[in-house]
Amino acid sequence: MPGNSFGERFRITTFGESHGPGIGVVIDGCPAGTQVSLDDINKELARRRPGQSQLTTARREDDIAVIQSGVVDRKATGAPIALWIANSDARESDYTEIAQAYRPSHADYTYQVKYGVRDPSGGGRSSARETAARVAAGVIARSILSSAVQINAYVTQVHNVMLTKPWTELDLSKIDGNAVRCPDAECAKQMEAVILAAKESGDTVGGVIQCIIQGCPPGLGEPVFDKLHADLGKAILSINACKGVEFGSGFQSALMKGSEHNDAFSHDTNGNIITNSNHSGGIQGGISNGMPIVFRAAFKPVSTIMRDQQTVDTSGQEVTLKSKGRHDPCVLPRAVPIVEAMVAIVLSDHLLKFRSIEHRV
Amino acid sequence: MPGNSFGERFRITTFGESHGPGIGVVIDGCPAGTQVSLDDINKELARRRPGQSQLTTARREDDIAVIQSGVVDRKATGAPIALWIANSDARESDYTEIAQAYRPSHADYTYQVKYGVRDPSGGGRSSARETAARVAAGVIARSILSSAVQINAYVTQVHNVMLTKPWTELDLSKIDGNAVRCPDAECAKQMEAVILAAKESGDTVGGVIQCIIQGCPPGLGEPVFDKLHADLGKAILSINACKGVEFGSGFQSALMKGSEHNDAFSHDTNGNIITNSNHSGGIQGGISNGMPIVFRAAFKPVSTIMRDQQTVDTSGQEVTLKSKGRHDPCVLPRAVPIVEAMVAIVLSDHLLKFRSIEHRV
Amino acid sequence: MPGNSFGERFRITTFGESHGPGIGVVIDGCPAGTQVSLDDINKELARRRPGQSQLTTARREDDIAVIQSGVVDRKATGAPIALWIANSDARESDYTEIAQAYRPSHADYTYQVKYGVRDPSGGGRSSARETAARVAAGVIARSILSSAVQINAYVTQVHNVMLTKPWTELDLSKIDGNAVRCPDAECAKQMEAVILAAKESGDTVGGVIQCIIQGCPPGLGEPVFDKLHADLGKAILSINACKGVEFGSGFQSALMKGSEHNDAFSHDTNGNIITNSNHSGGIQGGISNGMPIVFRAAFKPVSTIMRDQQTVDTSGQEVTLKSKGRHDPCVLPRAVPIVEAMVAIVLSDHLLKFRSIEHRV
Amino acid sequence: MPGNSFGERFRITTFGESHGPGIGVVIDGCPAGTQVSLDDINKELARRRPGQSQLTTARREDDIAVIQSGVVDRKATGAPIALWIANSDARESDYTEIAQAYRPSHADYTYQVKYGVRDPSGGGRSSARETAARVAAGVIARSILSSAVQINAYVTQVHNVMLTKPWTELDLSKIDGNAVRCPDAECAKQMEAVILAAKESGDTVGGVIQCIIQGCPPGLGEPVFDKLHADLGKAILSINACKGVEFGSGFQSALMKGSEHNDAFSHDTNGNIITNSNHSGGIQGGISNGMPIVFRAAFKPVSTIMRDQQTVDTSGQEVTLKSKGRHDPCVLPRAVPIVEAMVAIVLSDHLLKFRSIEHRV
Repeated sequence: MPGNSFGERFRITTFGESHGPGIGVVIDGCPAGTQVSLDDINKELARRRPGQSQLTTARREDDIAVIQSGVVDRKATGAPIALWIANSDARESDYTEIAQAYRPSHADYTYQVKYGVRDPSGGGRSSARETAARVAAGVIARSILSSAVQINAYVTQVHNVMLTKPWTELDLSKIDGNAVRCPDAECAKQMEAVILAAKESGDTVGGVIQCIIQGCPPGLGEPVFDKLHADLGKAILSINACKGVEFGSGFQSALMKGSEHNDAFSHDTNGNIITNSNHSGGIQGGISNGMPIVFRAAFKPVSTIMRDQQTVDTSGQEVTLKSKGRHDPCVLPRAVPIVEAMVAIVLSDHLLKFRSIEHRV
Repeated sequence: MPGNSFGERFRITTFGESHGPGIGVVIDGCPAGTQVSLDDINKELARRRPGQSQLTTARREDDIAVIQSGVVDRKATGAPIALWIANSDARESDYTEIAQAYRPSHADYTYQVKYGVRDPSGGGRSSARETAARVAAGVIARSILSSAVQINAYVTQVHNVMLTKPWTELDLSKIDGNAVRCPDAECAKQMEAVILAAKESGDTVGGVIQCIIQGCPPGLGEPVFDKLHADLGKAILSINACKGVEFGSGFQSALMKGSEHNDAFSHDTNGNIITNSNHSGGIQGGISNGMPIVFRAAFKPVSTIMRDQQTVDTSGQEVTLKSKGRHDPCVLPRAVPIVEAMVAIVLSDHLLKFRSIEHRV
Repeated sequence: MPGNSFGERFRITTFGESHGPGIGVVIDGCPAGTQVSLDDINKELARRRPGQSQLTTARREDDIAVIQSGVVDRKATGAPIALWIANSDARESDYTEIAQAYRPSHADYTYQVKYGVRDPSGGGRSSARETAARVAAGVIARSILSSAVQINAYVTQVHNVMLTKPWTELDLSKIDGNAVRCPDAECAKQMEAVILAAKESGDTVGGVIQCIIQGCPPGLGEPVFDKLHADLGKAILSINACKGVEFGSGFQSALMKGSEHNDAFSHDTNGNIITNSNHSGGIQGGISNGMPIVFRAAFKPVSTIMRDQQTVDTSGQEVTLKSKGRHDPCVLPRAVPIVEAMVAIVLSDHLLKFRSIEHRV
Repeated sequence: MPGNSFGERFRITTFGESHGPGIGVVIDGCPAGTQVSLDDINKELARRRPGQSQLTTARREDDIAVIQSGVVDRKATGAPIALWIANSDARESDYTEIAQAYRPSHADYTYQVKYGVRDPSGGGRSSARETAARVAAGVIARSILSSAVQINAYVTQVHNVMLTKPWTELDLSKIDGNAVRCPDAECAKQMEAVILAAKESGDTVGGVIQCIIQGCPPGLGEPVFDKLHADLGKAILSINACKGVEFGSGFQSALMKGSEHNDAFSHDTNGNIITNSNHSGGIQGGISNGMPIVFRAAFKPVSTIMRDQQTVDTSGQEVTLKSKGRHDPCVLPRAVPIVEAMVAIVLSDHLLKFRSIEHRV
């Protein structure tokens, strides 16, 4: 398939450009009867929306979705669900100048090489604006999952400020309590200061998001290639600016011995099988084991900076790019709902796949 | 699709269990006329083969592939290519005892939960033995790529021993010069010592593999979901024991500012567009840009240790597992050809996809 | 995948209901640089549009498409192309009564069984209105094909009136010369009379469409399952009311002997290999051979008739259905552009797939 | 995907050539716990086996399958199931002469055009020998379906001999009672005579197979493209020599009026909703409605005849082809189990897909 669809049984196809008329998504495979709340979709879009705080780009978008098909009386009919989010603050004129220069670490050059033509306005398809469609689809995906499944992503590092507390000591209900989306208020303040300082100097900063999935039923994941963490990894790496992803012990596992790393099986007080530690991050052999799924994703600093940069233009001449436009000093706070959306989409897809082979009484 | 196939235009489907009659792979989509050398396949299988050094498991497998279809006169006919690798040293009796206990951090428990039944012998499908099929397929994938494309993976960390030299200062032709597959002989010796010490104590160690892809043509990758690094990430995360993957600057990017991280465009002496730095790791906007593709993958310590472990059995009773069998103290040296194989498979698949939309003169 | 997408490299996903806000399609995989003419799309939609003659339903739809993404300066950018066709004459009130009764030979009952819920208005997704999206996508698919490829479908039978002349004796440029879309004016008049007589009596009639594809390059089709005629067959059978499809000699082949049926190879005056006869219908072993591709598709009489019918309602009671609404006495004339569209989509998809494995100089 | 796989949740991939070492199939997605009986597989292979009567080719193949993976204790483990059927009577020497000439109405020419190279022996991949793999996979597919589902195909026409009785007046348990596989003994004799007469004269004959599926649960089929009859149609058209397929009233529907064709809904004595007639052939709107599914497939006369034929060779010269080898005078009797196998595969795939969206109590 071409690359604008994701998922097999719960399948989303996104379309639309940053500075065209809008962004859309078609969801195919949503089981009939699934609750579809436009309110919930729009609330979630507001979490990703630009202009929500001084930490984000000044571009203002209402980001209001409309339902074009597949829903009657707030329930999925089984037909494809199409959602449309009109762009309201697209300014093509901002981009006439830069249309000729390859912006460093943007996709201008690679799109030109691959497609021969390039949408001249604002990154077109490679802009993170596309992720609004994912967030909207993610809300519907979440409706398919049991309410026992809780997906919480939060910012655990911004530039040099790291949240060192383990997630089990955090109150995950406080993630949206500040503009950074870090559940530790103290740490959030430090992060905010770092972001504002970067903004002040026309620069940008990166960071790390951690995601905790509680209540995921065991059995999701399809070895040997569509392992649950492999599909989650692909989904997360497909988010703009993501440079890496690690599960459970992740890169730290390289420093551990088998005797330390192995998660001994045991029981909880209800007699359910659990593991005493969770270095596996809730996934073993590519299949969820019922323990919390834990992963981290690294995001690079945003490529658009408010400083002059050296580059070449489409004719091959070296030029100085004087950046204009409206962009984010740090992508992390707005990436939190995108990460959560992609997780919901992957889990729903795997849940529907699992249902097809599950044993019936 | 169920999970035992990978790729869309160059598509592999693997089958077979660790302790069954053998392991196989069907390759569909290999362009007619592609060279298929059984010698090359068997040489590459020898790099992954158990028992190749004292750093690896004592299980002895010939790992000789036979071609069952799709090849005439050492060339692909366009029909599916089937390869079969018979198991020669499978010992089911080694596993009768552990069949009842869930080995910690293995896939025993999750397979039981997902499938209700379990192949009792040696991990069955979840064993890394399956990767022999990937390595064989990878050799054919590599034949599709131009000889200008060089894929080199090497061990850059074993437990606490890290190779700190950048890859540009290494002689990548020396990777197979030692049993560890680290191109720096000095560092390799340290790594070897760490592995042997772990083996001595019945323990295992993890590590990190770095992979460098030189000569990859620009234009590969299909946004927005099938970005090149997203597909590479999925492929690598699907390898047994892999816990994380990062591209270019990876997790370090979190510590950098946009003004440091951006890769300025420039020219090489032939007038080709290059970037002065390569924090992007050869991929921008999900599409290869012609610079070297660089990624790292973390591997946890092998779960099978030669020590008693606490666990529960299938009846839910707590038991002590007395490990037997023959396993690797460190998976890294044998994972190098697996990583390279998956890279070749991903690149071939994306190359064939790119060809379908490329401009023709 | 769920069922609302078709094609692998040129991939369409349709959405929207008959009496909702509109109908849409997302096209993914259209090569950058492909010409996209909104005029051509709207001209083709006019061929399928209801209300175009007294032979068709009185429902009036403008059927004007708008482009939502993927096109700049009338050329595809490589991004997904979204087209939207608003419904202008949807009358939900026409359907309040029938929402409770299962209309005979409609999809009301099977949708209820499958999905549990049902879009109450006008057949929702099962209405032929969905095919407007296919026709729009077909125009773009046709742009990918060489102009040497000519796809001509025409009505060759309406009820008991059959066009007996072989296609080689017809002037295919005259297909749109009458409302029936039969290139023989005399025969068209007879067909028209049959349709109007059926309309007069509140009844409907079926028929057969023949399709001729000239100039199709040899080599398209992917054995053993994705044979060209197998994929064409699926595409045509997926059109509303289609009950059968046959290629070349079709069902008549059952009456022939091998010595009669075999197509002897020979040369044309340019030295190209041709076959003297064409019972194969342009496809051998599932791959196009360069001869004209010929197939026929049977369409049943439209299920909506202007007569009372016995049926049961959703509570299981037997009821008399008094049909209302506006429907076609014969679907054939409007099905011609739909057949052509599906052919263009299948050929484009196979052309892109063939390109990926074609030999390069 | 390349063309050698079929199905999405129950997915088969076939490989192997007519005159290579053997034929194989990998089945991915078979639910764990499914019964897998090698006896049943080999019995069914015997129904397709060459040399089973004087009506078929004299090539003798044991057609004994072995299981290479995915089955323990006669039950599927959830891992891919690989089956291998060795060729025992492959004679490459039979084909050395014809390797240079394009056999009329065979795939020699189109394979050459598509792939540039050609497997020189016996049609290679385009030979109907490949269908042995489908028959084996079909037995496993059938195990997934409820025992209430009955799939019966039979020969209803050979050349000019047609069985005119409706299927409801036939005893379908007698299909295998004669070598033709026609459940009417009288008619079978006539058919047999026609086949033997053709064989005598070195010629071949075609015919029609009818298939009846009783007990199919309602709800299978995924509109709008993956309609149940569209997928069945593709599956059947992918069988060698098949030139057409029709469902329910099929091409006869063209001669009917809506008032005649519509299937009125009613009740059976148990209160279940049925239709009084079944012109729809058990499928409405692309979804099974619980009534018997009925379709017919046309098969052309076998292309290999024992007569001299004019053709061209690979150098473009006109030559006389003196046919040798061992082939079937009529493909119909052996095609019966192939049709049934493809039906079982399509139904299983759709059943698994339906399960994923079904409502749960």
